[in-house]
Amino acid sequence: MATQRRSPDATRRNPAVRRAILTAALELAAEVGYAQLSIEGIAARAGAGKQTVYRWWPSKGAVLFDALLMLSEGDADQAAELPDTGDLEADLKTVLRATVEELNDPRISEPMRALAVEMLIDPALAADYTERLDRPVKDLKRRRLRAAQAAGQLATDADIDLAVELIWGPLRNRWLYREGPLTAEFADAVVEAALNGLRPQPPAAG
Amino acid sequence: MATQRRSPDATRRNPAVRRAILTAALELAAEVGYAQLSIEGIAARAGAGKQTVYRWWPSKGAVLFDALLMLSEGDADQAAELPDTGDLEADLKTVLRATVEELNDPRISEPMRALAVEMLIDPALAADYTERLDRPVKDLKRRRLRAAQAAGQLATDADIDLAVELIWGPLRNRWLYREGPLTAEFADAVVEAALNGLRPQPPAAG
Repeated sequence: MATQRRSPDATRRNPAVRRAILTAALELAAEVGYAQLSIEGIAARAGAGKQTVYRWWPSKGAVLFDALLMLSEGDADQAAELPDTGDLEADLKTVLRATVEELNDPRISEPMRALAVEMLIDPALAADYTERLDRPVKDLKRRRLRAAQAAGQLATDADIDLAVELIWGPLRNRWLYREGPLTAEFADAVVEAALNGLRPQPPAAG
Repeated sequence: MATQRRSPDATRRNPAVRRAILTAALELAAEVGYAQLSIEGIAARAGAGKQTVYRWWPSKGAVLFDALLMLSEGDADQAAELPDTGDLEADLKTVLRATVEELNDPRISEPMRALAVEMLIDPALAADYTERLDRPVKDLKRRRLRAAQAAGQLATDADIDLAVELIWGPLRNRWLYREGPLTAEFADAVVEAALNGLRPQPPAAG
């Protein structure tokens, strides 16, 4: 079930219809969840023909992908760097708490969950996502961690990709598998455990 | 798409046919992957009628779930504890390296990946999995970490559930999202980073 991505031209044919379809996909995913989401439902909500949707997108996953891309392109923060006040722990807590807020909003989290399912099924869609949506965000994270490394706040031999996983992974997993409540306290605990490790801490100097 | 689990009685009607179906599901998932896996294909491989499979299982995810349960029940290690030589870091590396071996074996990893997809789609199946397959394994992990905590090798205030996530999460994610190669070196790096944290280490006492 490899995804054949529509040519970029096709989606530009009618920007208003395209936007209506993508907005409908986001709304419906939030309302009914992945399993009940269908191309037919998206078309009906958008007031478009089913064939119009099928002509431009090969699957509901492909529609959701472009819908989330539309959201991120409309997001003024997208080009920004992660905060850097010089205090890595505080900055990471700020970022993860904001992510907790987003993941508790079904208008964002349900389309993201539906896309996650499609990515597991469809490696071509997953590769497309990684290239266009995930990598830019991961680059921001890596840059912030490298700045902390240069400032002596991370070990000089820390593996930055693994550090990203330790800091951001637990939140993603708890969300994706519904393993527990997503709270600001959990975000803080993850940041502290990832930075400090699990072993007993040496007594603070002074 | 909630899973209606078949009654336990039904699956005991013919143990040989049941075993043939579950074995076929494991083999086919390894060979063709989640998207191409179908009840029809499983029935044909098992030499059983399609209706027989449908009578006992409501979805391919439910078949896979029982197939993986059959594997784990046949696994003599299942009842065992995680290794405890007194050296937490060495023991965790042993365990994670064994997991790396399993995840690099498509006969195990492809059925697991297919089940992971079904769990994201089907909350009832996910709850069943959590109760019957995931929780016993997580309990082993927690017990080993609590023993380490009692031995002073983990911080007394370490959150054990979060510790499980930091230690086992990165491997699961790298596998599920195909984010990189699964190697013994990666297993070791994860254990070290989770235990030691990302901050610069104080010089070892001499």
